[in-house]
Amino acid sequence: MKLTILGSSSALPTSGRYPSAHVLNAHERLFLIDCGEGTQMQLRKTRIRFAKINHIFISHLHGDHVFGLYGLLSTFSLMGRTNPIHLYAPENYDKMFKSHLSDFDINLSFEIDFIPLSGKDPIKILDDKYLTVTSFPLQHRIPSYGFLFREKKSERNLIKEKIDKYQIPQVRLPAIKKGEDFITPDGSIIKNEDITLPPREPLSYAYCSDTKYFRRLASFVMGVSLLYHEATFDKGKEDLAAITGHSTTLDAAKTALNAGVGSLIIGHFSARYKDISPLVDEARTLFPKTYPAIDGKTYEVGNITDP
Amino acid sequence: MKLTILGSSSALPTSGRYPSAHVLNAHERLFLIDCGEGTQMQLRKTRIRFAKINHIFISHLHGDHVFGLYGLLSTFSLMGRTNPIHLYAPENYDKMFKSHLSDFDINLSFEIDFIPLSGKDPIKILDDKYLTVTSFPLQHRIPSYGFLFREKKSERNLIKEKIDKYQIPQVRLPAIKKGEDFITPDGSIIKNEDITLPPREPLSYAYCSDTKYFRRLASFVMGVSLLYHEATFDKGKEDLAAITGHSTTLDAAKTALNAGVGSLIIGHFSARYKDISPLVDEARTLFPKTYPAIDGKTYEVGNITDP
Repeated sequence: MKLTILGSSSALPTSGRYPSAHVLNAHERLFLIDCGEGTQMQLRKTRIRFAKINHIFISHLHGDHVFGLYGLLSTFSLMGRTNPIHLYAPENYDKMFKSHLSDFDINLSFEIDFIPLSGKDPIKILDDKYLTVTSFPLQHRIPSYGFLFREKKSERNLIKEKIDKYQIPQVRLPAIKKGEDFITPDGSIIKNEDITLPPREPLSYAYCSDTKYFRRLASFVMGVSLLYHEATFDKGKEDLAAITGHSTTLDAAKTALNAGVGSLIIGHFSARYKDISPLVDEARTLFPKTYPAIDGKTYEVGNITDP
Repeated sequence: MKLTILGSSSALPTSGRYPSAHVLNAHERLFLIDCGEGTQMQLRKTRIRFAKINHIFISHLHGDHVFGLYGLLSTFSLMGRTNPIHLYAPENYDKMFKSHLSDFDINLSFEIDFIPLSGKDPIKILDDKYLTVTSFPLQHRIPSYGFLFREKKSERNLIKEKIDKYQIPQVRLPAIKKGEDFITPDGSIIKNEDITLPPREPLSYAYCSDTKYFRRLASFVMGVSLLYHEATFDKGKEDLAAITGHSTTLDAAKTALNAGVGSLIIGHFSARYKDISPLVDEARTLFPKTYPAIDGKTYEVGNITDP
């Protein structure tokens, strides 16, 4: 699992920071999370293959999270795309979206499969061979949702020498990978642990933006390998964060700490901060494994190091 | 008069070419013409001052000419703008625009003065101290308009030594700048040509995008100092140009030639062209003073030279 940040700014982009957009690569399938203005240009710059994106998640309907969507979908169309796009967004977007396409004379060459987000509890919105995706409510000025991407546990790894040694037939291997023991033709039992190795621990990534701090959020992202949490403001701007429905550095760190996550990336930085390293330092006082979102940078989920 | 190109791509942007947006600087007042996705980032890169933009012209409602508008206006708002924006766009945009602002929860901190574009003939849409702006119909798949910016003739320049020599009082100078003669206290007439020099010729800039070729277009842009004309395709793609309502290099050059313009800039290049110099060469076979639109480059209207 790898995460590429395409934009780390809040509503007002700067010359070095584009509005929100993340690409999660899980088993070479790409998940686009939010789609701020300029996302398609950032995809080009980072040489991410447009065709591998089949799922787009929109957290909420503020422009800095969605203004890039129309251009990106138009471009998909001009490139001759035929595969459907699965679009996950707040439930009221469906009707708006269709009317915007019509307003701008956009005739897509592919289907949009719209999956509405709603509710006050986590809901599983995608479940496939490799992973599940859950949406959960955030607290912002308008309905806003976070997303949790969780790898499924892989099968156990066969130890080739042991398979050869016990002359285990091919047809039995799928069950053994799932954890079953092997029974030899003479009826003796070979324990699964003797012929397989455990798979690596599944990774998980959660995206929380935009939101103010609330206690229950930690329960939604409990124990994830990597948490992205917005930190629009420094710790001194609690009042501004409250008014605008955003988080401070310490809010993000507190949720990371309470949820016991592996690492924390903070982003969605206000344009007032030219240098973001003081924001990272603030968060690290509570949660040392904090890292900054940087446009164009790719992070290995479960193995993040300083730039 | 200076023109800065912010985007020279057609609908599908490339890594080096953003969608359409031009900034015309006339007497340090900035006119934004079209506003494709990423315009606000391009404004930052070219260090153009946002606050000096008071007039925005939208040629037509295809995304590559308008998707940057919402982000730009939101940014104006976040920067605390209070001066109104004069927005010139096809007449059906007024209602859509308001509903889009509401869909995206945008509350602007300033007024929008909407000036609808319509009609089959040129219409004067702005007339101030320094210049007039005229809109004129183009021919595209949807209603599309071009814009002609024409400086007003400046006043005549006083020759200081002559003013001193004839002891012309201050109060008479405004009339003399406008071309009047001076009558001395003893009744003799000093000819205006003896005490003033003529002003420089007024400059003019016309923007034509998107459009297919049509004969009457040349009459709308007759004799302008600088014509920008789209040239989405090379001369071999006439059929594609006809189907999509666009122009080839030779279409642009033909209009420049028929209109007797000073110079021609071509742009709105299809993403299929990595190198655009063959397109410029094609146009130059008909109209030698053709230059390419290049993102981020500023051109002196009336004095364009090769990059």
